[in-house]
Amino acid sequence: MSSVGLVKTKYYTFAHYPNELVLDSGQRLGAITLAYETYGALNEQKSNAILIFHALSGDAHAAGKHHPKDEKPGWWDSMIGPGKAFDTDRYFVICANTIGGCKGSTGPSSINPRTGRPYGLDFPVFTIRDIVRSQRALIDHLGIDRLLAVAGGSMAGMETLEWAITYPDRVKLSIPIATASAQSAQNIAFNDMGRRAIMADPRWRKGDYYGKEPPFDGLAVARMIGHVTYLSDATLTSKFGRKLENGDGYGFSLNPEFRVESYLKNKGEAFTRRFDANSYLYITRAIDYFDLSKEYGTLANAIGRARSRFLLLSFTSDWLYPPCKSEEILSALRRCGKQGVHKTIDSTYGHDAFLVEDAKITPTISRALEEAYCSVSSKG
Amino acid sequence: MSSVGLVKTKYYTFAHYPNELVLDSGQRLGAITLAYETYGALNEQKSNAILIFHALSGDAHAAGKHHPKDEKPGWWDSMIGPGKAFDTDRYFVICANTIGGCKGSTGPSSINPRTGRPYGLDFPVFTIRDIVRSQRALIDHLGIDRLLAVAGGSMAGMETLEWAITYPDRVKLSIPIATASAQSAQNIAFNDMGRRAIMADPRWRKGDYYGKEPPFDGLAVARMIGHVTYLSDATLTSKFGRKLENGDGYGFSLNPEFRVESYLKNKGEAFTRRFDANSYLYITRAIDYFDLSKEYGTLANAIGRARSRFLLLSFTSDWLYPPCKSEEILSALRRCGKQGVHKTIDSTYGHDAFLVEDAKITPTISRALEEAYCSVSSKG
Repeated sequence: MSSVGLVKTKYYTFAHYPNELVLDSGQRLGAITLAYETYGALNEQKSNAILIFHALSGDAHAAGKHHPKDEKPGWWDSMIGPGKAFDTDRYFVICANTIGGCKGSTGPSSINPRTGRPYGLDFPVFTIRDIVRSQRALIDHLGIDRLLAVAGGSMAGMETLEWAITYPDRVKLSIPIATASAQSAQNIAFNDMGRRAIMADPRWRKGDYYGKEPPFDGLAVARMIGHVTYLSDATLTSKFGRKLENGDGYGFSLNPEFRVESYLKNKGEAFTRRFDANSYLYITRAIDYFDLSKEYGTLANAIGRARSRFLLLSFTSDWLYPPCKSEEILSALRRCGKQGVHKTIDSTYGHDAFLVEDAKITPTISRALEEAYCSVSSKG
Repeated sequence: MSSVGLVKTKYYTFAHYPNELVLDSGQRLGAITLAYETYGALNEQKSNAILIFHALSGDAHAAGKHHPKDEKPGWWDSMIGPGKAFDTDRYFVICANTIGGCKGSTGPSSINPRTGRPYGLDFPVFTIRDIVRSQRALIDHLGIDRLLAVAGGSMAGMETLEWAITYPDRVKLSIPIATASAQSAQNIAFNDMGRRAIMADPRWRKGDYYGKEPPFDGLAVARMIGHVTYLSDATLTSKFGRKLENGDGYGFSLNPEFRVESYLKNKGEAFTRRFDANSYLYITRAIDYFDLSKEYGTLANAIGRARSRFLLLSFTSDWLYPPCKSEEILSALRRCGKQGVHKTIDSTYGHDAFLVEDAKITPTISRALEEAYCSVSSKG
């Protein structure tokens, strides 16, 4: 498969004083910078734009490479590029880092214009809808009236749903993947434990650790908790089982000995080198607050606002956002007479499947995009 | 249901120098004190004794009360007592606190006779088989040649299996509940995260915190992780769902707001008041080391050593030790022509079901014990 090649992250700054973005909390956030990337070309009618959202630890760099020597391409490179699911020969693909993040968009580690110091815990708590609002400003800036599609997995699936009901006239097709219409109690619990682990690290210093040693231990534990929930028991068993790091005999110590332990330790530690602990706190909070039906009484009332088609994808071994959660959304769509398809993909990769099973989901997504694009083109 | 009434914890000390217990690691542990309780009366033939093992956070106090004003009875009071599953009108029930524990048996917080100070990390790493070995000494001390049954859920189910293959002539019936023949990679991962959280707490001080402030924050996070794995998504949803502590509106803060968060916070904190962090490290390590087949090549080879009957119980919503793990044991039993029954109980309580679903498991256990007892009596 070919690649989008070398790409550059771009930046858009808006919501300057006194026109800050008013958040769900009533607090104001501005100025806001969004780091974003685009792949492919916007057509003349501006009818071929697809907005991709990223999951908790993702960023704007969804495809291609920044430098020829980069070891890895963007996080969804298997899905975005010429001839791929999000075909950059036909579509113009946009991906922006979330507010509250730490990959170029305004977040807790950014300078608070009021104090001249990093926000830390002065950063306002935001919601999935606030993320969507901020990205609408980017879509306006790019001069796009109506997106061909919004798409994403996990937290990004929530943003996809939120976009569809908050800006019903501004999207043709919504592709929420491996997600739910509301964060479950169990998933709130997992996020909460991660937050506790970070806050229990004395180096967290109530969020005021910039320029000092960050709460690496707490963040590593938080990531380990998250990471296990992204994998299936089957994946862990086939990848590691009960294999030991050294030989076949137990070391009879409390140190990591099983390969699964070293793997998670490495994953946790690597994460601390690329992610900000406060961003982890804020973004997981936004996920936990997500409840599409909250203001509308029922899920059908909420989803009834949408005017897009829906392609819902889920994976059999995903126990974090199991297929039944997508089925709930489909039922709500049906109850209000909306168009929707839910496809459950057979996979052993757990929640991570949405990042891995590109071959299995590409045909369905390609076809849905094509249908949406053709109907746009014929009307246009 | 009536109760066993007021009970007292007893203590048995053995393995004095130079006859310490030799552990699987090759290290020696002694003297060993086991805290234990007994309920009911041992019959003249000593043929009615049942050894109950406790799970990770349990203790010797399985039934009755220590003081009339105790708010709660022992941890398995619903199962042990006159007319209950483990009927103390007929059977003599024994439960001992594990070595490595912190409820009266010798563990990391006990005084190391070599140094006159608490063991801390000088306590030897032990295995499920070591736990079983130490309790065999207690059974010898009580003059019991052959147990009518061994029983327990979770880690205690592992001890039940281990007893059956390590002392095949010394048990008539094994009742492993909600357990597995080996700890899975996923479950090692969950335990590992708990250990990381404890060790990341600066107050842990490499285990040398006795007399100082213990690593409460780390232990609380470890307990929260464990606790979530004991519950089902259904239980968390029906108990808490997305309910907030205060009213219906979000607080837009990083503090716990959802009831499930406060619940877990309280559970975590309460646990630090009753459990020792080092014991948590050692006992979870023993669980992770558990692999019944390790020395025998296959599970069938291992379980083929047993001479007891087996009654395996599992619960539909238990995702920590799901029914398929018990089914694996049953298959191994069948492969070597052994007697075994596996019953999967319909329950929404997740792994905790073994502590909660007494009404559902009592008839099966009662009947199995009765059959075993009758066959003992008729032979005796």
